[in-house]
Amino acid sequence: MTTYFSEAASVETVNARMSDTTDPRLAEVMSSLVRHLHAFVKDVTLTEAEWETAIAFLTRTGQMCSDTRQEFILLSDVLGVSMLVDAVNNRKPSGSTPSTVFGPFHVDGVPERRMGDTISLDGVGEPCLFVGRVVDLDGRPIGDALVDVWSDNADGFYDVQQPDLQPQHNNRGVFRTGPDGRYWFTGIKPVSYPIPDDGPVGEMLGHLGRHPYRPAHMHFLVTAPGHERLITHTFVSGDGYLDSDAVFGVKAPLIVEFEERPADSDGPKWRAAYDFVLPPKA
Amino acid sequence: MTTYFSEAASVETVNARMSDTTDPRLAEVMSSLVRHLHAFVKDVTLTEAEWETAIAFLTRTGQMCSDTRQEFILLSDVLGVSMLVDAVNNRKPSGSTPSTVFGPFHVDGVPERRMGDTISLDGVGEPCLFVGRVVDLDGRPIGDALVDVWSDNADGFYDVQQPDLQPQHNNRGVFRTGPDGRYWFTGIKPVSYPIPDDGPVGEMLGHLGRHPYRPAHMHFLVTAPGHERLITHTFVSGDGYLDSDAVFGVKAPLIVEFEERPADSDGPKWRAAYDFVLPPKA
Ligand SMILES: [Fe+2]
Ligand SMILES: [Fe+2]
Repeated sequence: MTTYFSEAASVETVNARMSDTTDPRLAEVMSSLVRHLHAFVKDVTLTEAEWETAIAFLTRTGQMCSDTRQEFILLSDVLGVSMLVDAVNNRKPSGSTPSTVFGPFHVDGVPERRMGDTISLDGVGEPCLFVGRVVDLDGRPIGDALVDVWSDNADGFYDVQQPDLQPQHNNRGVFRTGPDGRYWFTGIKPVSYPIPDDGPVGEMLGHLGRHPYRPAHMHFLVTAPGHERLITHTFVSGDGYLDSDAVFGVKAPLIVEFEERPADSDGPKWRAAYDFVLPPKA
Repeated sequence: MTTYFSEAASVETVNARMSDTTDPRLAEVMSSLVRHLHAFVKDVTLTEAEWETAIAFLTRTGQMCSDTRQEFILLSDVLGVSMLVDAVNNRKPSGSTPSTVFGPFHVDGVPERRMGDTISLDGVGEPCLFVGRVVDLDGRPIGDALVDVWSDNADGFYDVQQPDLQPQHNNRGVFRTGPDGRYWFTGIKPVSYPIPDDGPVGEMLGHLGRHPYRPAHMHFLVTAPGHERLITHTFVSGDGYLDSDAVFGVKAPLIVEFEERPADSDGPKWRAAYDFVLPPKA
């Protein structure tokens, strides 16, 4: 007995078409996707004109993508999907440092620097000392942890966004902790910046009355033998966009006091201290 | 009081960000989309690797689109979304001819032909007489109705897919009914064909164990003053793909007996009779 398409049985009709030999996880994901997509269309009684707008929007989003621009990741970010995928995959034991979005600006293969080195290769921006420890859930130092860091420059751009204007690996570095678990390096106090907003996602934000800014943050990717990998940021306390991060990345425990040091003191103008707490590998 | 992102409050956090001045319908559609997208991610606990696969799939889908190829419409079609949008926007009074998907192959501005003309400009395929009436819900003929028809050729391709191989407007035509509501024209008995399957959507169908074929059909767009526009097909009874149309377009009342005429009779080999019943404009 054949079931032809009907509004009432739309989900079952589509999902019944999958072969019995389909990979079980793919079948699970796709049948859930069909269920939720159809529920969306029914809930709002999506019009034919709105459907056409959606098709055109998705097409332009795909065509905006290039080697240096990923508009679908931006779309996922501003809809909170990236943070949600991060959340459901990183349910950490209490006491762990929370994770946040990875973002599109990490670079693989940045050379390891000597502890204490500066990552501000262009020397532009307000110098800031970043210090702290990598520890386990009991507060014991973790040695041999790799602390991979990256931030924007004083104008709000990552080096990869301005390959002709910034030195390669400007404001990036990888540091390895010793037995005391400590890290320290000099960068700049990061500044808030807009996500790229000259494409369809920026247009959408405009229609929603949302700005494209992220509060100032330093990215961290911390890995250590025997422990869960940590992808996170530290956010600059007092930033005006902390309550309205365009990609919803802020979590209260990640907001850090950047202390301004006395004008007559040696060294960088700012100091940001933060300890990273890594649970053991599951 | 700021609410930062959390798995539990993910939907509310994202939707609270919309401005009060956002167009109310846009706000309704987008907040429903966020709700259903987040529910999907939570239901399947989408992994980071699966999210990356999805981003790459959507990107390739956008980049497959061109002036002559709309891969996102194909995606919507094979997920049953196109049929669902059709369904929720075309809830017709009982007795009306049901609608089905418009498809990507309609052409605007095809010249009106004289009633009875052939639309088979290349003369290839099995000739078929299409006949019937356009009537209202009480069975009264509708004059001055435009019957816009299009089908694939004997090889399964629409003229626009083969601009160098087929005459322009091959197997297309527009006919105007007289006071008796009757239409008749000669075309070919349509053949089943695969939707374009050399892109990401075809790949996806492969992974789902689904074939890309549509059962043979003639497209109809019927418009008449004072009546609802009708977008539909007639399907060739007995076609092997009626139960597994790749885009879920089949509805039982649209399946038509194509009668083979006696070998010694004059005229086209096949005959397909069908009346279109149009409700009054809402
Ligand atoms: Fe960033
Ligand atoms: Fe078709």
